[in-house]
Amino acid sequence: MTGPIVHQPDPRLDLVFERVVEVSTEHLWRGWTVDEQLKKWFTPLPWKTVDCEIDLRPGGKFRTVMRGPEGQEFDNVGCYLEIVPHRKLVWTGALGPGYRPRPAGPAGSFVMTAIITLQPRGAGTLYTALVIHGDEESRKAHEKMGFHEGWGKALDQLVALA
Amino acid sequence: MTGPIVHQPDPRLDLVFERVVEVSTEHLWRGWTVDEQLKKWFTPLPWKTVDCEIDLRPGGKFRTVMRGPEGQEFDNVGCYLEIVPHRKLVWTGALGPGYRPRPAGPAGSFVMTAIITLQPRGAGTLYTALVIHGDEESRKAHEKMGFHEGWGKALDQLVALA
Repeated sequence: MTGPIVHQPDPRLDLVFERVVEVSTEHLWRGWTVDEQLKKWFTPLPWKTVDCEIDLRPGGKFRTVMRGPEGQEFDNVGCYLEIVPHRKLVWTGALGPGYRPRPAGPAGSFVMTAIITLQPRGAGTLYTALVIHGDEESRKAHEKMGFHEGWGKALDQLVALA
Repeated sequence: MTGPIVHQPDPRLDLVFERVVEVSTEHLWRGWTVDEQLKKWFTPLPWKTVDCEIDLRPGGKFRTVMRGPEGQEFDNVGCYLEIVPHRKLVWTGALGPGYRPRPAGPAGSFVMTAIITLQPRGAGTLYTALVIHGDEESRKAHEKMGFHEGWGKALDQLVALA
């Protein structure tokens, strides 16, 4: 092995959200990895995360259930790939628990892998979410859904918990 | 974290190939992880593995090109998920290098994750390949393609290299 993979964003396929926030890497890590914490911030209001399962190890389940204001629900199952406490968290929706490939979703749905990195900046953190897709259509669909605004509002909610 | 994931085969979705062979875990590991070795055994004759790329780290590329007796070629790209030298190798075709989700393949194709485990048995090895799929159709298609015979012949070729 020659050290961890270096992720080079591809603007055609990837979305990047980056911001310096005035909370510690520990606070952000806890928000991402403790189920009761995650439910408090993960989905921009008026949407809510009403259920969450976190089995924090490579191949372990990461499941969230999001509920919209009209009661519509989205049940998302994926698994963790890399876990470096307080620094890096990688998970994907392309594989379920135990790395099992996920059946294809309904038309118009897309699959992503998220690479979250936390780098200390004084008392704060440089928070980066690199979200990668398998094709341009998926990236475009995700962007159109409001990727940048959504991840920004969710992060505001996470910071406000501190 | 609570230790590595335990893989429980599901007969509806998974295929298992298991055999005790009279070669060391080191020999089998080398066959799986050194490109020039892998090309010598990976595909049952008269098929050949004509190209192979191995970037042996989580998220690293695993690519093989198989060529049939009539010149037809299959180019398979995936990535490694877990690497425990001489004991366990996990890779998937659902993600490409850097954990990027793979676009859906042509109709009739299927996606798998392979979990190879090597357990010393005296001077030999208990060799287990657990191959997991996302749905029953994929498992059936893979089985029909000749999973058990194919993995058996390939393993014979790997053992014969010792």
